[in-house]
Amino acid sequence: MTTLSPTPRSTVQRGKKRAVTSRDELYSVLDAGLICHLAVDVDGAPIVLPTAYGRDGDTLYIHGSTGARSLREAITGKPVCVAVTLVDGVVYARSVFHHSMNYRSAVIHGIAQPAEDEVRGLRAIVAQSSPGSWEYARTPTPKEMAKTAVLAIDLTEASVKIRTGGPGDDAEDIEADTVWAGVLPLHTSWGVPVTDNGHAVPAHVSERGR
Amino acid sequence: MTTLSPTPRSTVQRGKKRAVTSRDELYSVLDAGLICHLAVDVDGAPIVLPTAYGRDGDTLYIHGSTGARSLREAITGKPVCVAVTLVDGVVYARSVFHHSMNYRSAVIHGIAQPAEDEVRGLRAIVAQSSPGSWEYARTPTPKEMAKTAVLAIDLTEASVKIRTGGPGDDAEDIEADTVWAGVLPLHTSWGVPVTDNGHAVPAHVSERGR
Repeated sequence: MTTLSPTPRSTVQRGKKRAVTSRDELYSVLDAGLICHLAVDVDGAPIVLPTAYGRDGDTLYIHGSTGARSLREAITGKPVCVAVTLVDGVVYARSVFHHSMNYRSAVIHGIAQPAEDEVRGLRAIVAQSSPGSWEYARTPTPKEMAKTAVLAIDLTEASVKIRTGGPGDDAEDIEADTVWAGVLPLHTSWGVPVTDNGHAVPAHVSERGR
Repeated sequence: MTTLSPTPRSTVQRGKKRAVTSRDELYSVLDAGLICHLAVDVDGAPIVLPTAYGRDGDTLYIHGSTGARSLREAITGKPVCVAVTLVDGVVYARSVFHHSMNYRSAVIHGIAQPAEDEVRGLRAIVAQSSPGSWEYARTPTPKEMAKTAVLAIDLTEASVKIRTGGPGDDAEDIEADTVWAGVLPLHTSWGVPVTDNGHAVPAHVSERGR
């Protein structure tokens, strides 16, 4: 199993027991997400933006519009940090201090570069946010591709943290045993498709897994 | 209705039609979230981290551990950017190009300062992530408070974007009418509480709304 390559900034400092070092776990967290949060420095201050993404091998792709004040202009060639976070539940401890959340989190540090193969990158993004759509819907025209900036971020420098299980209360609070403690799981699920036209809902939408 | 105070960086540049300028909408997005993504610049590169938060009036609170290489050390007095994002569904358009997501997004720019009233800040964070727990579980001791850094970020400079509704396809694709288009809603819901001890699940957990 390939391990992640931690650098000082990608080495988990807090909550080391939650750090995970396998590359498969990184893929697993990234493949389960729907959006990422992308941070970049603009004029000396950080900006964080939610955006769609996709993964193909060890490359993370994001996209945006081309043109002035665009994603492409803001981040191409600059250090970026990308987080994908899945919250799985709230941990109710016997003490407020030990309250926590169960989650899966991936954080990637890299340089955003123009994608060498823009179509490949866009396909990865579409496969992540709406699997099956590239094969089903009308694919982009050259004009639409020209309006779309596709950026690639290498997945070499990444950290993964996963928390599962019940509360980690202090021994005194466990012994006192005065209140309920446990986990309230958080689930995400797809609802009933809302149809915009007269066609039947295709299987890649109606049977979408999560 | 109070409006937000946009500055160049908090003025929505892309997708202006999705920008919302009421302060009530900002509160509504923040109050519906469970975690935020916090970005800060460390050694010339941005870092983004998922973390719990709370809101009290026009102040956003976050917390972390005190000590070396901690959140407090990394961000106190520095410009930060915080995003709270709720994904409500995937928009399947007739063309790949117009695929989108329905979402509610708040982005705040500010300076992270030590909270003037740390207990107030912590209560806001607990009320957001586990409402009822401050009143139910054992509250923090002075020693636990000393280990906890509570930081405050003013909500003055913020932007809100909300997308709802069906796909915005081109007229030609709508006319051609070759494929299904619509929205697949994404729901989040609480599961069945997993109990860690012999107590009955309290109402603030079993009846938690979302």
